[in-house]
Amino acid sequence: MAKDEYKEFRLVGTRPDRPDGLDKVTGRARYGADIAAPGMLWAAVVRSPHAHARIVRIDTSKAEALPGVKAVITRADFPEGLTGEAWNMQENTMAGERALYDGHAVAAVAAISALIAQDAARLVEVEYEILPHVTDVDEAIKPDAPVIRAGAADATVPEGMPPNVVRYMEFGHGDLDAGFAAADLVMEKTYKTEATHQGYIEPHACLGQLGSDGKGEMWVCTQGHWYIRKMCTDVLGLDPAQLRVTPSEIGGGFGGKTTIFMEPLSLALSRKAGGRPVKVVMSRAEVLRATGPTASASMDVKIGMKKDGTMTAGKVVFRMQGGAFPGAPVDMALYCAFAAYKVPALHHEGFDVLANRPRAAAYRAPGSPMAAYAVESLVDEMCKELNLDPIDTRLKNAVRDGDQSSYGPKFGSIGLVEVLEAMKAHPNLQAPLGPNQGRGVASGFWFNHGGDTSVSMAISEDGTAQVSIGTPDIGGLRASIALMTAETLGIAYDDVRVNVVETGALGVNEPTHGSRATFASGKAAVIAARQAITEMCRRAAAEWGIDAEAVEWVDGAAQPAGPNAGKFPPMTIKEIAAKMSSTGGPIAGHHESVPDGVGASFGAHVVDVEVDPETGRTTILRYLVVQDAGRAIHPSYVEGQYQGGAAQGIGWALNEGYIYGDDGRLQNPVFLDYRVPVASDLPMIDTVIVEVPNPGHPYGVRGVGETGITPPLPAIANAIHAATGARLRSLPMNPPSVLAAIKALG
Amino acid sequence: MAKDEYKEFRLVGTRPDRPDGLDKVTGRARYGADIAAPGMLWAAVVRSPHAHARIVRIDTSKAEALPGVKAVITRADFPEGLTGEAWNMQENTMAGERALYDGHAVAAVAAISALIAQDAARLVEVEYEILPHVTDVDEAIKPDAPVIRAGAADATVPEGMPPNVVRYMEFGHGDLDAGFAAADLVMEKTYKTEATHQGYIEPHACLGQLGSDGKGEMWVCTQGHWYIRKMCTDVLGLDPAQLRVTPSEIGGGFGGKTTIFMEPLSLALSRKAGGRPVKVVMSRAEVLRATGPTASASMDVKIGMKKDGTMTAGKVVFRMQGGAFPGAPVDMALYCAFAAYKVPALHHEGFDVLANRPRAAAYRAPGSPMAAYAVESLVDEMCKELNLDPIDTRLKNAVRDGDQSSYGPKFGSIGLVEVLEAMKAHPNLQAPLGPNQGRGVASGFWFNHGGDTSVSMAISEDGTAQVSIGTPDIGGLRASIALMTAETLGIAYDDVRVNVVETGALGVNEPTHGSRATFASGKAAVIAARQAITEMCRRAAAEWGIDAEAVEWVDGAAQPAGPNAGKFPPMTIKEIAAKMSSTGGPIAGHHESVPDGVGASFGAHVVDVEVDPETGRTTILRYLVVQDAGRAIHPSYVEGQYQGGAAQGIGWALNEGYIYGDDGRLQNPVFLDYRVPVASDLPMIDTVIVEVPNPGHPYGVRGVGETGITPPLPAIANAIHAATGARLRSLPMNPPSVLAAIKALG
Repeated sequence: MAKDEYKEFRLVGTRPDRPDGLDKVTGRARYGADIAAPGMLWAAVVRSPHAHARIVRIDTSKAEALPGVKAVITRADFPEGLTGEAWNMQENTMAGERALYDGHAVAAVAAISALIAQDAARLVEVEYEILPHVTDVDEAIKPDAPVIRAGAADATVPEGMPPNVVRYMEFGHGDLDAGFAAADLVMEKTYKTEATHQGYIEPHACLGQLGSDGKGEMWVCTQGHWYIRKMCTDVLGLDPAQLRVTPSEIGGGFGGKTTIFMEPLSLALSRKAGGRPVKVVMSRAEVLRATGPTASASMDVKIGMKKDGTMTAGKVVFRMQGGAFPGAPVDMALYCAFAAYKVPALHHEGFDVLANRPRAAAYRAPGSPMAAYAVESLVDEMCKELNLDPIDTRLKNAVRDGDQSSYGPKFGSIGLVEVLEAMKAHPNLQAPLGPNQGRGVASGFWFNHGGDTSVSMAISEDGTAQVSIGTPDIGGLRASIALMTAETLGIAYDDVRVNVVETGALGVNEPTHGSRATFASGKAAVIAARQAITEMCRRAAAEWGIDAEAVEWVDGAAQPAGPNAGKFPPMTIKEIAAKMSSTGGPIAGHHESVPDGVGASFGAHVVDVEVDPETGRTTILRYLVVQDAGRAIHPSYVEGQYQGGAAQGIGWALNEGYIYGDDGRLQNPVFLDYRVPVASDLPMIDTVIVEVPNPGHPYGVRGVGETGITPPLPAIANAIHAATGARLRSLPMNPPSVLAAIKALG
Repeated sequence: MAKDEYKEFRLVGTRPDRPDGLDKVTGRARYGADIAAPGMLWAAVVRSPHAHARIVRIDTSKAEALPGVKAVITRADFPEGLTGEAWNMQENTMAGERALYDGHAVAAVAAISALIAQDAARLVEVEYEILPHVTDVDEAIKPDAPVIRAGAADATVPEGMPPNVVRYMEFGHGDLDAGFAAADLVMEKTYKTEATHQGYIEPHACLGQLGSDGKGEMWVCTQGHWYIRKMCTDVLGLDPAQLRVTPSEIGGGFGGKTTIFMEPLSLALSRKAGGRPVKVVMSRAEVLRATGPTASASMDVKIGMKKDGTMTAGKVVFRMQGGAFPGAPVDMALYCAFAAYKVPALHHEGFDVLANRPRAAAYRAPGSPMAAYAVESLVDEMCKELNLDPIDTRLKNAVRDGDQSSYGPKFGSIGLVEVLEAMKAHPNLQAPLGPNQGRGVASGFWFNHGGDTSVSMAISEDGTAQVSIGTPDIGGLRASIALMTAETLGIAYDDVRVNVVETGALGVNEPTHGSRATFASGKAAVIAARQAITEMCRRAAAEWGIDAEAVEWVDGAAQPAGPNAGKFPPMTIKEIAAKMSSTGGPIAGHHESVPDGVGASFGAHVVDVEVDPETGRTTILRYLVVQDAGRAIHPSYVEGQYQGGAAQGIGWALNEGYIYGDDGRLQNPVFLDYRVPVASDLPMIDTVIVEVPNPGHPYGVRGVGETGITPPLPAIANAIHAATGARLRSLPMNPPSVLAAIKALG
């Protein structure tokens, strides 16, 4: 089943070195903090030490007087009168009347060195009036909770809702009461997940430059430089076309680098400093306190099931806080909750709730892991209650090609059944388990995404090709685009260079997010390459004096076809390129669209754990990811995505989580205290790439990045239950909480 | 006649601030030496102190042993087996068996600082065996001259030519003998011009990076980054698509920055230093000794003329040396010689001759100024002999629309007659002249050029637009492209940003040279904008539910036309852009071609001089440039080109020139000794923009950059003759040579 076994392609499915490999292993690749410019200044940001406080007064005079300081800004340096999301972004970039969370920026300084900037930041005097705060989602939704932003609720929120509810949604289908009545077992439980951070290795960094003429440039570590461009210009009241944004290499993003944090500060400081470039590099503590983790969630789930495992009805009520601004992924969580199941009656209800925390950003399959934790845990509880096999039960209820999804649209070609069957057949399922060991299973889902896409490609003078994409390469994108382009053109992998280009060089692109880049930029690259092929066939036809339609492209060469077949020897891409200047000029191809044909991706994980009954520590014994990739263009990077998603999910399940003190301040803003899994915490994660090709992509690609983070949360909860008998309905399942749950069993 | 008076366009012909203006006056613009990268090394180049020498031995061991030195390269670090122009370029980049001119690179060093690199360069031991040399073109063409590169002659050179002739050409039309026989006056003279340097303010600078995987990047001050890419990869044996070349801002080029000098050294050093980036910045002395000045020339001209001024026949024999490699612009010079005249019989003959000098590069209208100096001087001599008005004589023989040119093709629409008429009408022609003062007239010509051109443009989310061009902005290109694009789209000038993008982002582009950029990139930008307009009309039509053909674009908005006129209110570009993501995705336009429709440009200059009979010093009293621009997109920058061309021509005429000692070493490799005109040397140069629109361009553009350097050489010679009675047939006409000529009159 592995892609390597496909023989129909020459390059797709092979595993060449990534083009950016040497750069990255030799340190030559340039990341966010690696750029410099003449006259560059360094920035430092003054941040609120309070979870919620009125800003009574800011005195910047001492900071401004420090020699070497070139600019100090506060909210007064930003345009007024913004509304909606632009205003939200501006408010999060720099506090106005109130600081809304611990770490919220209140002023920023640019100076001739980083040390002087930090000294100056300490000289900015801010007088605060501390206000009541709330950080827990269940506390925040209470009617008498401290009001975080009056009037922030949108039109979806019915009258009379608690003041911190800013978005509300419900949807469903079928007769819920009849569904539950038809069930042999109805169970209802509440699950809770804590906010986690994407934990990317590279902190946010940028170098921005903005003149009084409104023209600027930025070098920035981001997943999406057009988003950065639009957001910065929205916040600063500029024209997007006047800001050129160049993405650096990126040391991880996972959704957290699709939005702005300190980037507008860099530009505003530069403008105030007479256009000198300003570098901003966050510390890890700033990343954890003031960038966007995922939301925390409190979720009620109710499911009805027959004795044979058939699901008859389901209901979820999700409450999520995404910080002091709207945007918790409640919608996505609800859409994902029952996506893997065909259930006759479903109801979904969700609340987006404000709290005094940093604004949530996207994090790998936003909303899906929380939803899966709730639903897949309860399905496991019910399977155990009814003595059913958890894989067979999922197979019995699994959605198939053409089924109506739980969230509305009909599925196209999907591979959930193939994934579950492949999982059943895997040897890990037969591995013997010892005392204090248990096995857990869960499935996961992500929609995948198309999104605004612009790609150009051009043929060089020697017949090699370059592809210009607008989606930063996070996990091997250059390799997969090069494979698809070379496959299409019929040339060698090494004859294609894929360049991630700046905003000034292409039409609009959405970020590398939503598991879209290999699908969307790849599809556009193939279409652009086909355009170039058409032009090359036209040039050959003109030289041969035959119709362009009578020429076909085979193995990297134009050749006469049909009645003209064999009349002329094939003309290779190198031959055509060598004389392109005299046959009509440069040869290129372009494509802009929001590509259709997105293919959803399902996965399922099996984990075996051992729980130490003395300490509550959970050890992962073995871990298997099975997921439908559509087709794996470069199988190594697909496996990498599967393993990386699982690793992040394992961290979320077992250890990661924001810890807020009673004062509303983050207690663990460093990696010593915010504990991500390290290599010694994990076994080699086994993977099976299932390939049910997506007919919406020329090479069958589905996105593969997101789904893998979804199943680990419930799979591990289910395994811990199997090992200990204790059911943990709150994350993280760290040693103290597991120990407490075991002790509670008596 | 001035463009400002045209009313048919909203923006074309206006004079807004240039978009890059603030950057350039505040020092924010980044030039060649302004870039840095982590781990950067600095280079120094070891250069031959001999005009011609065999390299017996190079010992780099002491340099390599110096702490801080990371790489030392010689020719041994370049691939072997290159042929043709690639071999020429490699040989000029770094000497192989022999150093061919004073300043020829023989080794290069990269170290952690510029000072260490310079110290290390001094530690490279080179043992030379000095060989006989020749630097003067008339000496170099002698049969017994030192042989510079045996076997370098191409197939155009007949058997038995002197050994340093490497290219030969002849062409003509009509019966030459009959033509001369029909003349009332036949004169034949020999003229000589010295090599001059473009004298750009910014010395060459680059930062190159190359890995052992053959993938590299370069930041470089250049007129054409695709040329740099192709030349560097040719010299180093790499794939062009694997090298991304980004152009810096450019402090002048004038043709001299269309080729490589030290750029391959930067890459070769980087590769040897494990991929660390290597910066190379030339000193002024290196620029003068080792980059490409123009050729020096020795030219015989013979013309037959009737008493009424009608030219009956002409013959030129041009000898040019362009250094130790082929490439003196003999062909261009011959083509230009009689381009302004309709003569029944003409013969042209030319010799490209090697000499021990740096390899010539292009310099503003390559070949045309020398040809004009010879032909326009002789025409003046004959007008004086026959007592004819020099303008009327030129009008009598002037080429007109549809005439066969002296070099072959038929002219399209041209404006020579309009230029001469406008000159006649100018008040400068009526200015009274005093003692020792004289007036000189001459005309000039340049073909202009199309060339490989790739342009993309894209609409931003707010309806502003960006244009990606591949031709560096030297003299206001961003402004003119923005004007044409904004005019076409029907939006404001400030709503367009023009970006000069790197090679990785566009198809192939020729450099900003040949007076092509405003014509070719401008034409492509207009075509690309029209593509975007078509797409925007399609989107509007789809929303209105009407045929796309029934929509027209007026004043920056789609509006229903024909039977649908008035049915829906116009949909502005901002409205269409705001929702483009949901109506089909990003909107862009692209164009690749070698644009046809190039329009030739004629100009004529009048100069009044005063010559000090005591010192021979020539003072320019007033100077008028009249030239056909087709249409002036941004008149200020057209005037700037006219004035700049004249200023360079004045320098060439009066003072500039390479001075070689008997040892073959350049005597004046600094600006104190190589004397370009400074502001106090020149009056305000008057300009008249004649506009005979070029039908081959959507806004009528011809190139304007080159022609202006051509007439000053003969115009000033003619004026000095008028002032003194002395005819100078050799350049520069500096005080000693003018004084000598006056004294020779007796």
